[in-house]
Amino acid sequence: MCFSRIKLIIEYLGTGYHGWQVQDNAQTVQAEMEKAVHRITGEEVRVTGAGRTDAGVHALGQVAHFDTHSKIPAEKFQDALNAVLPADVAVLSSGKAESGFHARFSSVSKTYEYRILNQRPRSPVMENRAWHIRDKLNISKMCQAADCFLGEHDFSAFCSSGSSVSTYERSIYISKWIEERDCLVYRVKGNGFLYNMVRIMTGTMVEIGLEKRFPDSILALLDGKDRNQSGMTAPAHGLYLVTVHY
Amino acid sequence: MCFSRIKLIIEYLGTGYHGWQVQDNAQTVQAEMEKAVHRITGEEVRVTGAGRTDAGVHALGQVAHFDTHSKIPAEKFQDALNAVLPADVAVLSSGKAESGFHARFSSVSKTYEYRILNQRPRSPVMENRAWHIRDKLNISKMCQAADCFLGEHDFSAFCSSGSSVSTYERSIYISKWIEERDCLVYRVKGNGFLYNMVRIMTGTMVEIGLEKRFPDSILALLDGKDRNQSGMTAPAHGLYLVTVHY
Repeated sequence: MCFSRIKLIIEYLGTGYHGWQVQDNAQTVQAEMEKAVHRITGEEVRVTGAGRTDAGVHALGQVAHFDTHSKIPAEKFQDALNAVLPADVAVLSSGKAESGFHARFSSVSKTYEYRILNQRPRSPVMENRAWHIRDKLNISKMCQAADCFLGEHDFSAFCSSGSSVSTYERSIYISKWIEERDCLVYRVKGNGFLYNMVRIMTGTMVEIGLEKRFPDSILALLDGKDRNQSGMTAPAHGLYLVTVHY
Repeated sequence: MCFSRIKLIIEYLGTGYHGWQVQDNAQTVQAEMEKAVHRITGEEVRVTGAGRTDAGVHALGQVAHFDTHSKIPAEKFQDALNAVLPADVAVLSSGKAESGFHARFSSVSKTYEYRILNQRPRSPVMENRAWHIRDKLNISKMCQAADCFLGEHDFSAFCSSGSSVSTYERSIYISKWIEERDCLVYRVKGNGFLYNMVRIMTGTMVEIGLEKRFPDSILALLDGKDRNQSGMTAPAHGLYLVTVHY
């Protein structure tokens, strides 16, 4: 049997979905993708994503693959799928995957962004797209805290229970806060992320920005490996999966 | 009778509204504002906006005023109104208006932005927030065209019928295209804008960007004063009222 593996880059607004992964009785992005491929090819396929984003989390560059016997040229899937996908999901590019490519296992690192709106009034334009924090954040302290995450660490203190992983060691290559016109953006690139890891890192740094913790307390949290000592889990709707690197 | 005039700066996402102005049997931003003031003060007021944005047009800095006998301090209206307004409308600031202030008549100029998403696939994140143009735009030609609008001109060729104005002369102080990370943004500041003026200017410049017209054809259109000779009206959902200047 001859099939092609198709690689997709996907953008979605997570607001209307219970995350990426197929679940019974819940709208998910993966289910929308599989329905769309079925409408185009008539095939029942599994669309495998690089990462399982949680309910409400957005993606600007989720990567996924699926296998098809269809004769549709790989690069034509972009327009074909966009014509049948709902408005809050779109394929940014499609192409033939290289031999042996797997969206999840071939990935070597990922970049996420967490967006914060730091102003007193709420913003209709940023509703469900950034975490609204009314109290003034001390950004320079948050930048100091972000630096502490760089390098290889055990992230047990920044991981929600409920995941089974063989190691809590992860390497962080980029960890910085950027002041954009309308938002405060935390950009983080690492070789892998534990369950809720970016959201707990962000929640803890926000507590530092609110001057409830010291910037270098991050080091003690990494050392202590105790989730109960780190900060709150930042809400899902500020988080974006930006790039999956191969 | 003693009353205070309150000045508001308002942000809204226009997607769910039939524009600013109160209409029978249609959701409008002005009606939401008046309902919200009524809930706070018990008064039936008119909330007067600086400009009547059309259905689907957004505002990052609409200005409005209303008169109240309420003893609520002017700056407290921000939080009070935000607590009762729907998620797609918010008050960014409230304060006591200076003597003689009128949101519309005191305004000396306005700044609008028109956002274009120029890429082949559609974008869920920009849905209803930018005009999606799939074909590659020649931005340098659009910049040349934008320059032609600077200064004082008769904008008859850039005005939809249905408005009654005493003069079609308007002065444009800023007219430029800016390439942002995710969007192509047209920023225009002028002492006043005719009905659909920014949208027809944008639609005409897009035709120049698609190389269906020459950049300096703008000058002939301004001279000719004929709406039938200028370009399409760009869709409402890319337009933002950014600032009202006093």
